[in-house]
Amino acid sequence: MFEAIATDRNARVGKLYLPYGIVNTPVFMPVGTQATVKGMSSEELKEIGAEIILANTYHIFLRPGIDVIKSAGGLHRFMNWDRPILTDSGGFQVMSLSKIRKITEEGVSFQSHISGERLFLSPETVIEINQDIGIDIIMPLDHCIPYPSSYEETLQAMERTLRWAERSKKYKEYHPSGSKLFGIIQGGTFPDLRRQSALRTVSMEFDGYAIGGLSVGEPQQIMYENLEVVMNILPKDKPRYFMGLGDPINLLEGIERGVDMFDCVFPTRIGRKGAAFTHSGRINLRSAKYSIDFTPIDNECDCYVCKNYSRAYIRHLIKSKETLGMRLVTYHNLYFLLKLMKEAHLAIIQQRFSDFKERFKNRYLQNKRGKG
Amino acid sequence: MFEAIATDRNARVGKLYLPYGIVNTPVFMPVGTQATVKGMSSEELKEIGAEIILANTYHIFLRPGIDVIKSAGGLHRFMNWDRPILTDSGGFQVMSLSKIRKITEEGVSFQSHISGERLFLSPETVIEINQDIGIDIIMPLDHCIPYPSSYEETLQAMERTLRWAERSKKYKEYHPSGSKLFGIIQGGTFPDLRRQSALRTVSMEFDGYAIGGLSVGEPQQIMYENLEVVMNILPKDKPRYFMGLGDPINLLEGIERGVDMFDCVFPTRIGRKGAAFTHSGRINLRSAKYSIDFTPIDNECDCYVCKNYSRAYIRHLIKSKETLGMRLVTYHNLYFLLKLMKEAHLAIIQQRFSDFKERFKNRYLQNKRGKG
Repeated sequence: MFEAIATDRNARVGKLYLPYGIVNTPVFMPVGTQATVKGMSSEELKEIGAEIILANTYHIFLRPGIDVIKSAGGLHRFMNWDRPILTDSGGFQVMSLSKIRKITEEGVSFQSHISGERLFLSPETVIEINQDIGIDIIMPLDHCIPYPSSYEETLQAMERTLRWAERSKKYKEYHPSGSKLFGIIQGGTFPDLRRQSALRTVSMEFDGYAIGGLSVGEPQQIMYENLEVVMNILPKDKPRYFMGLGDPINLLEGIERGVDMFDCVFPTRIGRKGAAFTHSGRINLRSAKYSIDFTPIDNECDCYVCKNYSRAYIRHLIKSKETLGMRLVTYHNLYFLLKLMKEAHLAIIQQRFSDFKERFKNRYLQNKRGKG
Repeated sequence: MFEAIATDRNARVGKLYLPYGIVNTPVFMPVGTQATVKGMSSEELKEIGAEIILANTYHIFLRPGIDVIKSAGGLHRFMNWDRPILTDSGGFQVMSLSKIRKITEEGVSFQSHISGERLFLSPETVIEINQDIGIDIIMPLDHCIPYPSSYEETLQAMERTLRWAERSKKYKEYHPSGSKLFGIIQGGTFPDLRRQSALRTVSMEFDGYAIGGLSVGEPQQIMYENLEVVMNILPKDKPRYFMGLGDPINLLEGIERGVDMFDCVFPTRIGRKGAAFTHSGRINLRSAKYSIDFTPIDNECDCYVCKNYSRAYIRHLIKSKETLGMRLVTYHNLYFLLKLMKEAHLAIIQQRFSDFKERFKNRYLQNKRGKG
């Protein structure tokens, strides 16, 4: 399923072979929680070069419901997206969205935050649902905990995640399909738990490995420390996915440590509020200083937004709560990250990734330093 | 500025020659109140064949302000739209949006519904502002009144509108520009006032004539009666614009009576709520009956939305409050009206407009009748 094409120290360029197509890594996956990447059409996602997107089992399970998507002939057809889709299991959403929830060894029962209905997800139903709707990469149900959590809580959640991973794997063996199944490494911010979780998850032999439960509020140094513990254990012939990372610098740091896949709502969420990535750092277009700035969001960007629209116009749209404003910044931010991934590919192939990262980082952080 | 190419009884096909290009009539103008057609990019507007759009003097005067648009090099450059723009004067918005307003002979003073600031618009400033930002067709400031209004109130508002029209014309003569200036016919629902208003406005010799103050809640029969009174007076060599009409049947009825131009927020506003035009009538995609309907909004439509997305998916998006849903229905509704205008062109040229209108109307209203 995965092939490494080139490496530069730990950074690597590879290919993922999936039912709906080939994905070039390192890859950033735009998040389409409710079967739509907020503000983007499928055609626009292709235009910016998205090769794989994310959807969320929890959300689509609640609305429109799996039956609707099955009737459509699967999620790809339902949302008019013919490239790969990865679904997050919903463990995180159960924790963060449903007010009433009960986690037992069997699975999670919770109240729909939409209909109030009582629902249940087990490791087995998560695989079943996702196979039914033709998902390319399935994330098994995991037990997510907030940051900070105690060692004991973290250990318990990790153990449960391991048991659920085992059940997910078994269910899939009895119900084979083209869908790929990843294992999720938990263990919070405790390096020894991370190590244990990684070793035991790897021993189950999944199609790929995800790092969950990081980038949830812990200091960056702790995040990287725990990431490195895990990366040293993960096998080189399988893809590695850091869940929930979307800041340009974080992506480059992740790539440098050997991560192949990323996702995050960050670029789309901040975009809707008018915050945009540029090569010289993040800017917020709501600021009065852009009111008569008729330059593009980023002078060096060649996306459709930067070719056609000015900061002043986008600021006007955002201030006026016009959806076109959110759309334009979302488009630019995703384009920016996807382009960054392409530049990272090239830098790895040309064995100059570390230099590329440093240059990008220096310029990106220059404004912050200027202010400091 | 206007040339009639073909006529079929009162219906006509023509061309408007404007600073930013040629517009084929009959034309429906999508409304871009705040310098953006809600949910549509300029590229999409071109894609659906929009030749002219509307903006609103009142709204852009308040936000982002005329200075910002002037600095951008005009409204076309500000919003990245290189085809003609018509601006409504804002008389209607002053009436409907500002809580505190005072109408004197000099003009209207009102409180911004955004900043609370006290502002003033006179017939002269409306022309000045619009010329400053390079508008193709300017609507002069008029005194709008609600429906119903008494004969006396309607007469007073009509007289003031005529005096303001005179001042607008004079100001423009002293400050010539490529912008075209229309006269607005008022007179409420009183045919004799409509006649007077039309005769006296026409005698001032504007570049075109608009019918204002109709389609504001009066019965359809009264609307058409008053429209016909005016149409009999308007000169054949000038364009005729019915302000605020956007229902497919109304457009065809208007064309049959000799109207060349239309605008309305109707297709975009109902689109954001999930209501879509189809050849067999209007449907509301929020309805549960579309939840597993994987056909396009309109089987006979060849727009990008109907080619790529299903009713069930769009319903899911609208129910989930995802902006893509509003966008897709908006796109389809505008495409539908613009296509209808193209079909009307052809029918007029082929001298079968009346037949075309009847056929369209019968199918469009069939569901309604079925229910009744």
